[in-house]
Amino acid sequence: MKEITLEQAGKWLREHDNYVILMHKSPDGDAVGCAYGLSIALRSIGKKAEPVCGDPVPEMYSYITDGFEHQCFEAECIISVDLATVDLLSGEAREYGKRVDLCIDHHASNTGFAAMGYVEGKAPSCAEIVKKLIEEIQIKITPDIADALFTGLCTDTGCFKYSSVTPETHRIAADLMEYGANSTKICRIMFDSKSRARLDMEKMVLDTLEYHEDGQIALVQITNDIMERSGAVAGDTEGVASIPRQIEGVKIGVTMKEKENGEYRFSVRTSDDIDASVICKRFGGGGHRAASGCSIYADRESAKQKMLAVCKEVLKGE
Amino acid sequence: MKEITLEQAGKWLREHDNYVILMHKSPDGDAVGCAYGLSIALRSIGKKAEPVCGDPVPEMYSYITDGFEHQCFEAECIISVDLATVDLLSGEAREYGKRVDLCIDHHASNTGFAAMGYVEGKAPSCAEIVKKLIEEIQIKITPDIADALFTGLCTDTGCFKYSSVTPETHRIAADLMEYGANSTKICRIMFDSKSRARLDMEKMVLDTLEYHEDGQIALVQITNDIMERSGAVAGDTEGVASIPRQIEGVKIGVTMKEKENGEYRFSVRTSDDIDASVICKRFGGGGHRAASGCSIYADRESAKQKMLAVCKEVLKGE
Repeated sequence: MKEITLEQAGKWLREHDNYVILMHKSPDGDAVGCAYGLSIALRSIGKKAEPVCGDPVPEMYSYITDGFEHQCFEAECIISVDLATVDLLSGEAREYGKRVDLCIDHHASNTGFAAMGYVEGKAPSCAEIVKKLIEEIQIKITPDIADALFTGLCTDTGCFKYSSVTPETHRIAADLMEYGANSTKICRIMFDSKSRARLDMEKMVLDTLEYHEDGQIALVQITNDIMERSGAVAGDTEGVASIPRQIEGVKIGVTMKEKENGEYRFSVRTSDDIDASVICKRFGGGGHRAASGCSIYADRESAKQKMLAVCKEVLKGE
Repeated sequence: MKEITLEQAGKWLREHDNYVILMHKSPDGDAVGCAYGLSIALRSIGKKAEPVCGDPVPEMYSYITDGFEHQCFEAECIISVDLATVDLLSGEAREYGKRVDLCIDHHASNTGFAAMGYVEGKAPSCAEIVKKLIEEIQIKITPDIADALFTGLCTDTGCFKYSSVTPETHRIAADLMEYGANSTKICRIMFDSKSRARLDMEKMVLDTLEYHEDGQIALVQITNDIMERSGAVAGDTEGVASIPRQIEGVKIGVTMKEKENGEYRFSVRTSDDIDASVICKRFGGGGHRAASGCSIYADRESAKQKMLAVCKEVLKGE
C-alpha cells in the first residue's frame, strides 16, 4: 500500500468520482459516522458517493441514515474507512474489498490492503481523520456531517474516556459542536439510553460473570438464550463488552457472544499493561491494544477454555 | 449578594489571605476538584488555603487529596465553591456558612448567601469557572490543579454527555490535559471502574426497579439492606441515580436512598421537557433542571408515595 498524505488523499478525492465507501461488518459508530459523513461531504461538491456495508446499519444510527438517499451508479473508486483488514468485510462489501483504492484508517494493525492509504495508528477514532480530510478538501462541514463525525468520535473514545484521547480530540469535538453536531442527542442515544430489553439482558449477562486468575480475568457470556429471553436485539449488545474490564482488579475482560454455526465472537478489553490485540491475533482476530476481537469456532465450553488459556498465558507474560 | 466579575474575584483573592474553601456535604467531584484545585493554586502564590467539608472526602478522590498537607491558620476569608445554598453545608462547614465572603458557583438556583458572588448559572461545572478564575489571577496551572479541575469538569458533565456541555467545555478539557491532567486515569476511576460490591449492589438495586405512569417514571431503591448485603460503601452509589432515567421512555428517573433517622434521600433525573428542580423544591431540595435532589423524612412507603405523587403532577404539567 502506498502511504499518502491527507493532502494527497484530498486531491485524489477532488479529482475522481463515483465513490463506494466501505464499512466493516457489524458497523459501529465510527464506521457509520465516517462512511456517511464522507459520503455527504463528497455529494456536497457534486460527486456520487454511497456507503456500503454487508450488514444492516443498526437502528440506533437512524439519525444519521434517515433521509440519506441512496444513489445508483457504476462504482469507479473504492474507499474504505475504519477498516483494518478486508477480512472484516461481509456480503456485497467483500467483492469491493478486492480493489480498494483508498484506505482511511486509524488501526495501527491495518494490513495495507489498499492501493493507497492514510493511516493514523494513534488517532482515537477514524472520524478525527475524516474531519481533517473533509477540511483539507475545503468542504463545508454541515450539521449532518458534524452529527455523523461526532458519532464516530464519541463512540470510539467511549465518550472521551479512553487513553487514546488527546487534547486534539476534545478540540475536534468542540469544532463539530460548532459545526452543528447535536452532541447531547448523540451522547444520549449512544451512552445514556437503554431499552428495557437491554437492561434485562445486562442483568442476565452479569449472572454469567466468572472470575479467573484471582479476579484478574473476568468473563461474561451473551448466549442466544439470553438474547431471546430478554428480547434484546443486535444493537442492544453495544457496550456490554466493556463491563467485565470495569470491575476492580480485572486486567482482562472477556465477553463471549454466541453467534450462528458454532461461532463464538469474543471481545477482549484490557488494562494498560496488557495488549488485547495479541490475545485476539492468536485466533485470527485483531484490533487495538485496549480493545480487540476475534471468533472461535467450537462448542461453548471449548471456545471459552481456548480463550481463557491464551488470556492466562498473556497475563503471565509468556 | 453583590455580583462581581471574575476579574474582581481574582483581584480580591490576590489581595487577601488565609482562605477557608467550603464544600457541600456528600462532596462530589466538582466540589472536591474546585476546593482542592483552588487551594493548591492559592498556596502556589504564598497564600494559606484549606478546603473544608463536613463529610469526609470519598476515597475515590484520593489522587487529589493524597499528599495535600493540611494547614492550620486563623480563617480570615471564607469562599464557597459549587455550593447553591448553605443548607447543603454540614458539620464544621456549617458555622463558616454564616459568613461566606465569596461564592463561586454554577447553580442558577444559588440563593445568594455570600457577601460577593460570581455565579455562571449555565456553566456545566464549577470547575470551568475556577479554571478561568485561576487563569485570571495568572497562576500557573500545575498537573495537580489540572487533575482536580478535570475531575470537576468530567464528573459534573457525566463525562461530557450532558446537555450543558458547550464547545468551551471541550476546549477547557483540552487545556487541562495540556496542563498535565491525567484524564485517562481520572475517567477510569470516575466512570470505568466498579468494585465487585458496586456491581452486586447495582444488580440488587435493579431488582427494586418499578415503573409508573406507563413507564414514564422509573424508581429504584438503595436500601440499607442492599448496602449491607453487597458490601457497598458510600462512594459506590455514585452514578446509580442516573440509571433509571436511562431506560427508554422514562422521563423522570427517581433513586431513593435510605439514610439514618427516617431520612430518605431522593435523586431525581429528568429528560429535557421536565424540570427536576421543580419536583425537589417541593420537598425543600433543589439542583439543576436535569438533576436535582431532596430529602423526605417518613417511613419508606410514605416517602415513596409522596415523591411519586409530585412526579405525576409535574409529568402532567399540573
